[in-house]
Amino acid sequence: MKPLVSIIMGSTSDLPVMEKACKFLDEMHIPFEVNALSAHRTPDAVEAFAKGAKERGIKVIIAGAGMAAALPGVIAASTTLPVIGVPIKGMLDGLDAMLSIIQMPPGIPVATVGVNGAMNAAILAVEMIALADEEVAARLADYKAGLGAKIEKANKDLAEVKYEYKTN
Amino acid sequence: MKPLVSIIMGSTSDLPVMEKACKFLDEMHIPFEVNALSAHRTPDAVEAFAKGAKERGIKVIIAGAGMAAALPGVIAASTTLPVIGVPIKGMLDGLDAMLSIIQMPPGIPVATVGVNGAMNAAILAVEMIALADEEVAARLADYKAGLGAKIEKANKDLAEVKYEYKTN
Amino acid sequence: MKPLVSIIMGSTSDLPVMEKACKFLDEMHIPFEVNALSAHRTPDAVEAFAKGAKERGIKVIIAGAGMAAALPGVIAASTTLPVIGVPIKGMLDGLDAMLSIIQMPPGIPVATVGVNGAMNAAILAVEMIALADEEVAARLADYKAGLGAKIEKANKDLAEVKYEYKTN
Amino acid sequence: MKPLVSIIMGSTSDLPVMEKACKFLDEMHIPFEVNALSAHRTPDAVEAFAKGAKERGIKVIIAGAGMAAALPGVIAASTTLPVIGVPIKGMLDGLDAMLSIIQMPPGIPVATVGVNGAMNAAILAVEMIALADEEVAARLADYKAGLGAKIEKANKDLAEVKYEYKTN
Amino acid sequence: MKPLVSIIMGSTSDLPVMEKACKFLDEMHIPFEVNALSAHRTPDAVEAFAKGAKERGIKVIIAGAGMAAALPGVIAASTTLPVIGVPIKGMLDGLDAMLSIIQMPPGIPVATVGVNGAMNAAILAVEMIALADEEVAARLADYKAGLGAKIEKANKDLAEVKYEYKTN
Amino acid sequence: MKPLVSIIMGSTSDLPVMEKACKFLDEMHIPFEVNALSAHRTPDAVEAFAKGAKERGIKVIIAGAGMAAALPGVIAASTTLPVIGVPIKGMLDGLDAMLSIIQMPPGIPVATVGVNGAMNAAILAVEMIALADEEVAARLADYKAGLGAKIEKANKDLAEVKYEYKTN
Amino acid sequence: MKPLVSIIMGSTSDLPVMEKACKFLDEMHIPFEVNALSAHRTPDAVEAFAKGAKERGIKVIIAGAGMAAALPGVIAASTTLPVIGVPIKGMLDGLDAMLSIIQMPPGIPVATVGVNGAMNAAILAVEMIALADEEVAARLADYKAGLGAKIEKANKDLAEVKYEYKTN
Amino acid sequence: MKPLVSIIMGSTSDLPVMEKACKFLDEMHIPFEVNALSAHRTPDAVEAFAKGAKERGIKVIIAGAGMAAALPGVIAASTTLPVIGVPIKGMLDGLDAMLSIIQMPPGIPVATVGVNGAMNAAILAVEMIALADEEVAARLADYKAGLGAKIEKANKDLAEVKYEYKTN
Repeated sequence: MKPLVSIIMGSTSDLPVMEKACKFLDEMHIPFEVNALSAHRTPDAVEAFAKGAKERGIKVIIAGAGMAAALPGVIAASTTLPVIGVPIKGMLDGLDAMLSIIQMPPGIPVATVGVNGAMNAAILAVEMIALADEEVAARLADYKAGLGAKIEKANKDLAEVKYEYKTN
Repeated sequence: MKPLVSIIMGSTSDLPVMEKACKFLDEMHIPFEVNALSAHRTPDAVEAFAKGAKERGIKVIIAGAGMAAALPGVIAASTTLPVIGVPIKGMLDGLDAMLSIIQMPPGIPVATVGVNGAMNAAILAVEMIALADEEVAARLADYKAGLGAKIEKANKDLAEVKYEYKTN
Repeated sequence: MKPLVSIIMGSTSDLPVMEKACKFLDEMHIPFEVNALSAHRTPDAVEAFAKGAKERGIKVIIAGAGMAAALPGVIAASTTLPVIGVPIKGMLDGLDAMLSIIQMPPGIPVATVGVNGAMNAAILAVEMIALADEEVAARLADYKAGLGAKIEKANKDLAEVKYEYKTN
Repeated sequence: MKPLVSIIMGSTSDLPVMEKACKFLDEMHIPFEVNALSAHRTPDAVEAFAKGAKERGIKVIIAGAGMAAALPGVIAASTTLPVIGVPIKGMLDGLDAMLSIIQMPPGIPVATVGVNGAMNAAILAVEMIALADEEVAARLADYKAGLGAKIEKANKDLAEVKYEYKTN
Repeated sequence: MKPLVSIIMGSTSDLPVMEKACKFLDEMHIPFEVNALSAHRTPDAVEAFAKGAKERGIKVIIAGAGMAAALPGVIAASTTLPVIGVPIKGMLDGLDAMLSIIQMPPGIPVATVGVNGAMNAAILAVEMIALADEEVAARLADYKAGLGAKIEKANKDLAEVKYEYKTN
Repeated sequence: MKPLVSIIMGSTSDLPVMEKACKFLDEMHIPFEVNALSAHRTPDAVEAFAKGAKERGIKVIIAGAGMAAALPGVIAASTTLPVIGVPIKGMLDGLDAMLSIIQMPPGIPVATVGVNGAMNAAILAVEMIALADEEVAARLADYKAGLGAKIEKANKDLAEVKYEYKTN
Repeated sequence: MKPLVSIIMGSTSDLPVMEKACKFLDEMHIPFEVNALSAHRTPDAVEAFAKGAKERGIKVIIAGAGMAAALPGVIAASTTLPVIGVPIKGMLDGLDAMLSIIQMPPGIPVATVGVNGAMNAAILAVEMIALADEEVAARLADYKAGLGAKIEKANKDLAEVKYEYKTN
Repeated sequence: MKPLVSIIMGSTSDLPVMEKACKFLDEMHIPFEVNALSAHRTPDAVEAFAKGAKERGIKVIIAGAGMAAALPGVIAASTTLPVIGVPIKGMLDGLDAMLSIIQMPPGIPVATVGVNGAMNAAILAVEMIALADEEVAARLADYKAGLGAKIEKANKDLAEVKYEYKTN
């Protein structure tokens, strides 16, 4: 199947963070591709990738990068597809990457998620795809409903834990 | 026409920032609605809004808020539509709002743009709508092509300005 | 006995921090309850909890949350009980959670304590309950008097330690 | 009538911020007093004030201070009454005052509100008093209900404003 | 004369900051050119510019940009010429631009100066050109010697001012 | 009379901040001198100054500087006199200057005061001189006693102001 | 021998940091005392200590504290002796303690050193004592001269190390 | 061969960071020297070094320093050679060193790289030397071309990795 989401990372060392996006897309049965491209080390490849993505059938691009994280913005500059940026924590608690990704000039937005927030990036991508695909929308709704269930179960576990404290 | 994008702001004092989103959507011929809702002052209305948005035909929600900006996240908690968050500058240069919006827990993403980045939020919304609407996609492509043209014109103006400095 | 304080945490992973609040309330003989609720994953449960707390006899709510910590503010939005917020350290040294909790808009305050300051949250809760319960007030006064005693003992220990340095 | 809330500020230059607390308490018919005391310039007066407040019938203390804002913590050190701290914006966007007030050591909490959040401090104080005074509780509930009404009215105003943008 | 230094700015609104670089180069008789190019709005032009700069005889590139300031890094990615980055103050006191420019990955450095430090960027450029041009080196040495002279004169002015304070 | 305190500033533009130090020293009858010296523009003069200060009878040096504020540390490197550093607010709210002055390596301390805290620097200088001069110590004690008096007067003014708010 | 320097720490857990001050004073043959006192837990003891210090012959006070570090400022409020503040690293990289100590209001200075900078605090104290004690001044001059010698030795070691890199 | 680049570090403890610069220069066959000099502990040696560097044939100076990192700026004050500053991470995530190095006053620039960015500093130095040495320029071009190759190889490795995730 042709990929709908393209996951790009600035360096393969970002894989442990970005693979959370892979796992979620897999869970949602969304075909995707994964590539390492660097705005600073392979600028031509980035541009070629960004310009060709729409034609190849990609719907959403997820780009993770750390430090002076130009990758998401540079991709956004050469496509009209939505680009989701994931700041990768390195130096300075990831604040350098967050500001480098989110503070885009008017005209070229990047949809930014929290530091190391690759799974949330994947959920956002699925939300966008679900806009025109009711089947995906249904799977996503199931997933979101399940979030509450997990907390409810946690809450029950907590009910037992709390007896340790409550003597009254 | 039924609105496709719903713009929410935490307070009407956010209107001067958020109206840049309105203008861009208008320019792209995307029907939209504008409402003031507060996660902290009208929580029931926020929840009712978020739960009903998809059924009413809304595709994307843009939520702007300042300070402890819970609004975008709280809306995202009750919908599977993509939610774009706009941190509004108030105290602390808008960093409080940015962190309050972007650092969402796994499962409930908010697509965050830069401080006061309402226009970019609207562009993101249009990019998402364009995924399933080639006409919108074409208008968006035109807009993006125009960005370069403006810079090129600016560059020509600069060419004249620079003579003031260059004596060589 | 019916609980007077309700401790809420956004995730059971916050328990190691929040149990310091449990221990202090226990020490002060204040009945309490502990629950995990998430502003983003179980919004309905949060609202139901907040709206019903006063009627159930709860006097003070302590809510701990990390990252984009909307929980304390969202609870405060649906109750007139005092809500104490505890920023949980995660990313960014807990500064994201602190700003997300403390910077509330006019009308909906959250009484915020320091990063991971669950014990101080419990002390604040007891101070509030003590306003109308002289027995609790007396226990609290004893506790506060004891703080100085601990330092005085530490000081004596230090008196012995310092001989290692002082050769004069 | 004897004051129930005591408002302290580190300097009379903090009055424009702190008078929002005065106004809200007045609106809620809570008798209060206002004093200027400085942890650094009148330490004896601060201690005498803090030690005597409970006996004089004070229920809650609101202390506003800027910069190295020691006042709220120093007051909290000498009383078992709840102390609410208001960081006053001066240098560094008020972040210095916020951290100086909120990061209290275990044992001596200060309930901290946002930068310049004097009105929210007053609301917190009223929430605490309302724990044992149903009349105050009723007035507070009315006030909170009114918050939503203001937003709803704002929303209607917005409905008219938005026609300027919507041509569809 | 063919330009030796190329000054690039992300937007013509950066001209008031960047023209300090123009003035200094002029003073040092270094031919230069000024252009507006945007990493995000004219990516092709940026790449073409960066790849062709060396061949056209440019020795040093000065690139000023604000917010998510990708321009200096993207230029550095496509040239072996030294690139000097000037963070332009916009939001967040210019810290976003500074981190976006300075925190480059290994392999693609940008020589970064302080916020709005365009004149210092020009001095750095002249220092680099002076490495192989003794005439420029001499002019630069004269300029640096003059810096002390200005302070010495200021000091004399101060000597008179200080009499206002000194009664002894 | 020979000056006991030497006030140095990195630029005459720092005079409006630093003259608060002059005024306080004058008030305390401490002879002083004022000079502009720059660690970066007149390094030789700084070194000569620092090395000769003790011999000339200077007891304390107050050095104010902004941005990458190397001046206080560089002076401290060449003297055994106590050096008090005053971070001058420029960019970044003065945080750049504060960190540049305070974070000295082990061995070469600078006694740092708050941003623009020139008056406090002068008080510190007087406190040091007072260690060996009982007359100065007495004047200083008078000054400190007066601080409380000012607050007490402010408090009385406040007593009248507060009637505007208190209707109870 | 009667102590000339009094080292105060907010908690005995600060001892590992503060003992660097002890060691340096010992090395300089300055008699000193060490105590644990807390502005928040033993306010009366702090005040008694501060008011009596001068009379007991103390010349300089070094106060280390973390978080909302009120101790140095509160001591400074009750003495005319110079007070040196040491921000202890805890949460937030010690920035909370630094701002809580350094940003004192006009009139009550604290001479602040870097995060965990206890040794530098001791050096500052010795510099102050040396103002009126030539013997101490001589020992201090010897110490400072030794700093350069250590670096020179390090430099020689480096000379050998660098051969590993230099193949040219 | 006479060194062209001089690497200075404030302390030998900075060697693990700075040796990345050594390695790169070695790889590019640029003769260099390494020294430890401290702006605060060996100010005379720093000044002598800076004043003599050009005459000795040095082309570029790389200076690494942490905390209140005055070294690069102080060197820049006494030479017309380009000075590259490397902020060394210590306290505060290296932000103190970065601001101390980059925020230089007009007239005395330091070309600053990212935190611990010693390798990038060396690349910058080689870029400057390459301006007048075509052989070095060729080696540098080869190096830069290789950067893309490494990413391309990484990308191929990733292609295999990704099969683990992609079940579609």
